[in-house]
Amino acid sequence: MGESYGAWRMGDDDRLMDFVSSVNIACGFHAGDPSTIRRTVETAVGKHLKLGAHPSYPDRQGFGRREMALSAAEIFDFVLYQVAALKGLCEALGGRLHHVKPHGALYNDAAKQSEKAAAIAEAVKKIDSELIVYGLSGSRLITEAEKIGLRTASEVFADRTYQPDASLTPRRLENALIEDDRKAVSQVMEMVFEQRVTALSGEIVPLRAETICIHGDGPHAVEFARLISSSLTARGVAIQ
Amino acid sequence: MGESYGAWRMGDDDRLMDFVSSVNIACGFHAGDPSTIRRTVETAVGKHLKLGAHPSYPDRQGFGRREMALSAAEIFDFVLYQVAALKGLCEALGGRLHHVKPHGALYNDAAKQSEKAAAIAEAVKKIDSELIVYGLSGSRLITEAEKIGLRTASEVFADRTYQPDASLTPRRLENALIEDDRKAVSQVMEMVFEQRVTALSGEIVPLRAETICIHGDGPHAVEFARLISSSLTARGVAIQ
Amino acid sequence: MGESYGAWRMGDDDRLMDFVSSVNIACGFHAGDPSTIRRTVETAVGKHLKLGAHPSYPDRQGFGRREMALSAAEIFDFVLYQVAALKGLCEALGGRLHHVKPHGALYNDAAKQSEKAAAIAEAVKKIDSELIVYGLSGSRLITEAEKIGLRTASEVFADRTYQPDASLTPRRLENALIEDDRKAVSQVMEMVFEQRVTALSGEIVPLRAETICIHGDGPHAVEFARLISSSLTARGVAIQ
Amino acid sequence: MGESYGAWRMGDDDRLMDFVSSVNIACGFHAGDPSTIRRTVETAVGKHLKLGAHPSYPDRQGFGRREMALSAAEIFDFVLYQVAALKGLCEALGGRLHHVKPHGALYNDAAKQSEKAAAIAEAVKKIDSELIVYGLSGSRLITEAEKIGLRTASEVFADRTYQPDASLTPRRLENALIEDDRKAVSQVMEMVFEQRVTALSGEIVPLRAETICIHGDGPHAVEFARLISSSLTARGVAIQ
Repeated sequence: MGESYGAWRMGDDDRLMDFVSSVNIACGFHAGDPSTIRRTVETAVGKHLKLGAHPSYPDRQGFGRREMALSAAEIFDFVLYQVAALKGLCEALGGRLHHVKPHGALYNDAAKQSEKAAAIAEAVKKIDSELIVYGLSGSRLITEAEKIGLRTASEVFADRTYQPDASLTPRRLENALIEDDRKAVSQVMEMVFEQRVTALSGEIVPLRAETICIHGDGPHAVEFARLISSSLTARGVAIQ
Repeated sequence: MGESYGAWRMGDDDRLMDFVSSVNIACGFHAGDPSTIRRTVETAVGKHLKLGAHPSYPDRQGFGRREMALSAAEIFDFVLYQVAALKGLCEALGGRLHHVKPHGALYNDAAKQSEKAAAIAEAVKKIDSELIVYGLSGSRLITEAEKIGLRTASEVFADRTYQPDASLTPRRLENALIEDDRKAVSQVMEMVFEQRVTALSGEIVPLRAETICIHGDGPHAVEFARLISSSLTARGVAIQ
Repeated sequence: MGESYGAWRMGDDDRLMDFVSSVNIACGFHAGDPSTIRRTVETAVGKHLKLGAHPSYPDRQGFGRREMALSAAEIFDFVLYQVAALKGLCEALGGRLHHVKPHGALYNDAAKQSEKAAAIAEAVKKIDSELIVYGLSGSRLITEAEKIGLRTASEVFADRTYQPDASLTPRRLENALIEDDRKAVSQVMEMVFEQRVTALSGEIVPLRAETICIHGDGPHAVEFARLISSSLTARGVAIQ
Repeated sequence: MGESYGAWRMGDDDRLMDFVSSVNIACGFHAGDPSTIRRTVETAVGKHLKLGAHPSYPDRQGFGRREMALSAAEIFDFVLYQVAALKGLCEALGGRLHHVKPHGALYNDAAKQSEKAAAIAEAVKKIDSELIVYGLSGSRLITEAEKIGLRTASEVFADRTYQPDASLTPRRLENALIEDDRKAVSQVMEMVFEQRVTALSGEIVPLRAETICIHGDGPHAVEFARLISSSLTARGVAIQ
């Protein structure tokens, strides 16, 4: 959420917020500017959603999706700054920061590289040890955050396909994105009720589904969210 | 303080911090990056200095010294973001944000334009109504901050000359900067003990001297600070 | 044209290019990134359009629409760099730079301030004295460019309303934009065939209409362009 | 050269230019701004130096020294834009672009990755097939540039130590930089007269020394340049 920038719009945040219980808000480094972020926090506070910071590598032109060789010390500093900003904004606007989810390439790097994952976790803890770290199910980020006593939420994706090692199919590959709403719903159902996913290769991969990600900038975001929300509710699962 | 950026150094913050009791730390919009800011806050916390946020127009290449036509609503958002970030960093690093001083062109615009001054004051209040607003002595920023119940500190400058209306001589004009240490000390003494300043034109201008600014990026910053500090101390004034 | 940035899309350049004979391409300072600009130049070259550079103040977040206090010397340098980049790209991609049109606040400042207008004209001349300067009809930019021997094209706007002094109604005011296609067409017809425009106030204002601007980022851009093109063609005016 | 940015100074370009025959000028993506670049080109033109473009990854805060996962297509576009800008500036200011040397992480990536090296070479060729590509001696960049018919200059470093595979010791490792002027001179003499270098490990590594790099931002840059220049001249080698 909050991924517009200046004159450029991205995502239909207001409508998407009607179908989710928590949001990850851009902090200004891959997307978002102070006005966009303030408006997004205000809207999310108004809808009583759980507020998350969505820190990123400093790469606006690449939307934070390109790996960058920041050192662990730099990652600590960049996450510290971004989470600090979001925390302060949430509190100024009547809310409270609830969780932190790294964005894009930082998220993927933190899934596989313990040192980077640890740097993120330490920055989060330094800001507020009550914050929950959202990380890819099975990732180093979850391991490192738990190692220093942080609460975590293992995340799974409604709109991305999986590899046999439970990582996301990289965006540069074909079939990385799920565009069909029935596929998205069916993958979510499998993940939530079976705690597993079927990889692109057909393999069954176990995972831990504690929070479901839908990308706000996807063309089907609102429709996916509506369908997933109603499908889960119909099967007795509360969105919370 | 904290006005280095990436590979570029500016100011000798560590030495300057030995002669002052409060610092204004760049927030990343005219200068400073997350690593520089984190280091600066840590050092200032270690020296038990009062910590200030130094928000700016978003103009790194111009060092925040060029007027930009941001609306009052944008100024509110940009100050809110920057002060939020600094507040969070100070708290994460064992300190507490104490005051806010706008930087450069934003400071000068806030001295003369009530609407912009009010936007800044409102953003500060939204973050924390205990924060003190540092503004140019006699400025609209002081008036607007006091109007909404904020505490203020009227600021005077050791290294800048004055105009007859108590504004600073603009940097683009000759004689804007004081380069001679005796002149700097003598101007400070006049301001502190007489609560007035002699403008470039020779006119005597009354002002309110509650805090003295020395620019950290000036070539004489450390020497000025040392001399001013010892001169004030010698005359029985504590730096606090 | 070329005003997308990274992951953010703006305008339907490809379709719009079917109805115009010349384009102004963002240079990367208010919009556009190297990939977007390269693609835009390639497409325009493929459609045999006249290629223009669209230099701006360095303000991406504000889309170059906020006045910034750059000195005339800085404006010279910033225009020089941007036009140089576009000229080189056009030549590398099989085209040739044909004209320069400043963007946004730089365009408006150059309409009223001779010193800034002269700085732009001098930068253009330094790059290539055959380049044509596009400026607001009646503006200082036209005067200053002609003064140093450059060719000019006096520009009028299809999608903006006018003030009695022949300036554009500022975007921050209501009624600045023309949203109705009949109004746009009728204003263009008046400007082209009568060399005058009816200001918002009802006054008749003479102007010189040598090139017609349609903003690529406007929601009606393609429709306006199609209608204006066919209306002009129907009345015997060639788009060239 | 030209690696200052806004208010931040870097390097003593004017003095360094007295000891070299060719310069690599920042293009604005890792360092340099339009005013800095214009001044640098003007000075170099005045001293009749060979002018080079020094394109980089888009990472100002990291000074272009962090690897970034740009695709080959993006690298083509980013190099095309930067070289186009420098070429246009050189011509506008009475000079002519002579060569292209990628900066920092882009240089290092182009030394080892053929696809990135090819993208750079193709962009250079697209701009002007007479341009010379400066690349690390023995690198993929040299190979790929020669493969498409470009002239090359194999570069060696006065102020960096070498690994046994003829790559530079990465900056994050100790002993990456040569700080001692006798060591710098002696390494240059070995490289120029023996066409080899002694790696940190003591191994003798053959290389091709056609141009010698001295980093303008190094603390010893001017002294190294002066000594190397006089040592080479004393042994009958012209700097040209």
